[in-house]
Amino acid sequence: MAELPPSPLAVSLGDPAGIGPEVVAKCWDNRSAFDLPPFVAIGDPRSIAAVWDGPIEIIDDPREADSAFDVGLPLLQLASAQADIPGHPSVAGAHCSLDSLELAVGLARSGSASAVVTGPVGKEQLYGIGFTHPGQTEFVAERCGVSSANVAMMLAGPTLRTVPVTTHLPFAQIAEQLSAALIESRGRTTLRGLQRHFGIAEPRLAISGLNPHAGEGGMLGREEIDLIEPAIAALRAEGWRVTGPHPADTMFHETARAKYDAALCMYHDQALIPLKALHFNDGVNITLGLPIVRTAPDHGTAFDIAGQDRADPRPMAAAIRMAAECGAYRALSA
Amino acid sequence: MAELPPSPLAVSLGDPAGIGPEVVAKCWDNRSAFDLPPFVAIGDPRSIAAVWDGPIEIIDDPREADSAFDVGLPLLQLASAQADIPGHPSVAGAHCSLDSLELAVGLARSGSASAVVTGPVGKEQLYGIGFTHPGQTEFVAERCGVSSANVAMMLAGPTLRTVPVTTHLPFAQIAEQLSAALIESRGRTTLRGLQRHFGIAEPRLAISGLNPHAGEGGMLGREEIDLIEPAIAALRAEGWRVTGPHPADTMFHETARAKYDAALCMYHDQALIPLKALHFNDGVNITLGLPIVRTAPDHGTAFDIAGQDRADPRPMAAAIRMAAECGAYRALSA
Repeated sequence: MAELPPSPLAVSLGDPAGIGPEVVAKCWDNRSAFDLPPFVAIGDPRSIAAVWDGPIEIIDDPREADSAFDVGLPLLQLASAQADIPGHPSVAGAHCSLDSLELAVGLARSGSASAVVTGPVGKEQLYGIGFTHPGQTEFVAERCGVSSANVAMMLAGPTLRTVPVTTHLPFAQIAEQLSAALIESRGRTTLRGLQRHFGIAEPRLAISGLNPHAGEGGMLGREEIDLIEPAIAALRAEGWRVTGPHPADTMFHETARAKYDAALCMYHDQALIPLKALHFNDGVNITLGLPIVRTAPDHGTAFDIAGQDRADPRPMAAAIRMAAECGAYRALSA
Repeated sequence: MAELPPSPLAVSLGDPAGIGPEVVAKCWDNRSAFDLPPFVAIGDPRSIAAVWDGPIEIIDDPREADSAFDVGLPLLQLASAQADIPGHPSVAGAHCSLDSLELAVGLARSGSASAVVTGPVGKEQLYGIGFTHPGQTEFVAERCGVSSANVAMMLAGPTLRTVPVTTHLPFAQIAEQLSAALIESRGRTTLRGLQRHFGIAEPRLAISGLNPHAGEGGMLGREEIDLIEPAIAALRAEGWRVTGPHPADTMFHETARAKYDAALCMYHDQALIPLKALHFNDGVNITLGLPIVRTAPDHGTAFDIAGQDRADPRPMAAAIRMAAECGAYRALSA
């Protein structure tokens, strides 16, 4: 009996009018330079043809991706109701992006894909067709049967990994939404993710403070004392290696970064400012806490530059490469 | 008539039990390598002798600093009531650090020093002797007859300058303390500071949002619409080159940084996280809006490592160098 080819990575193209199709095609173009494993794109081939002249290999089964990958960009076809124009999102395109995401997750759930990489979607467009999740992460969690309270969004670059405890909240709501239970839960998800996806047997987690100077012993706010320290104590009691609360401004220089495997931050910008300052072109969003591996480039649809051959494929390449690496660790530990 | 020697930089040693004396002495040791101009230290010579074996040249008049600088570390002597032990701050040391600061500012105000560089003080120790200012910056402002509402704290490194609108506030109070008037005022102080201290005739200011993604058009918070955009409009109406509100997480990568001369940030960590991630050892704190030039290294007393020969003098050297540079621009524009 012939051995089955390995399952490819499934890459959803995201909104067909965004830069997703362009950066995925450019990744195939540069597959050697970027050191990328075989992947299969999922979406409308017209959205790629509109921005790219290269060969598209339409396939019916993900197992064909491995051999097709040498010939052209393997693609599982999902037609939009209408051809999309780059930079001009539509209702039909939103449906197509959602169907692509759904199929990619289904393939990974069933083992037909080794991991999922999600292209950028237009949230406004998705909300317009009745999408009720805050973003793709929560949708993927639900399709995997995991409460979104138990997943965590990690941003990972070559020298820094960060996880925000709270994500897309108005700033004024951050302090009130924080709780010791939430910090502890995100911390545990992060530590387990470092083990499962990054192969770190005894991960080290650094947890930030919320207030300037981590509150200066209560003088500049009490969340460190009331919420963060109890969460740290609880995680340590389980045997995890956790430090903090650290003043956020002194956590991210080179010497400090060498002391931990991931930084757990209290809010979106606290996690994303240092990550993007240091790793703007190679930061990857990876969802921790799922039964599958899911990564995404850390950028949006960029409708304003779509179709102009200006989109940088490096973030998508980094997301594809990390999906392969994290999938390999998963396979080893399974 | 002999020409008078140029006024030296006045460097207060800060708390005698902190790392201030050590890093100032190491700066003199490495004055050539660090490319430092003549400066005079102000404080207790015993605090330096306790951590350093080099020559101290005690002088009575700042004008002697220029010639003394070749022989030893010039010092204007202020005795603590008792000798301080490195790492063990005392009431007497707090008085000495405050007296040093006061004298340094006085010399700069009278023109006997060209600029002030302040060593790190122990805030807890200063509060203990009746100091009622939040920090040295506000004290210096008062001594210069400037309302602390009209000064701004800039953190400046080789590739980034940031200014926080609010500084040492508990996180939960940041949103309520922000106002369009405060943002506008800090923006104007920053723009004028870029002209006066950095010689930039038409400075470009990038202003951050407060909320994730700069509020996404109001979906994630309204401060951008209600406070920040009006402040930007007011500054632009005066002819200043101002952009924003920018999502804070995409403001600090290399390409973004090239588009502005300073970033005005809404709170402490938003300004200090990127600055210290990129420029931990050469970030300088410079107070804008004063009639004198005042800089400081961007670190604290570090009582825990004082007296162990472990303190890194590079931040103090950067502060001294920047004070000289900003003083030169001041002299040119005066």
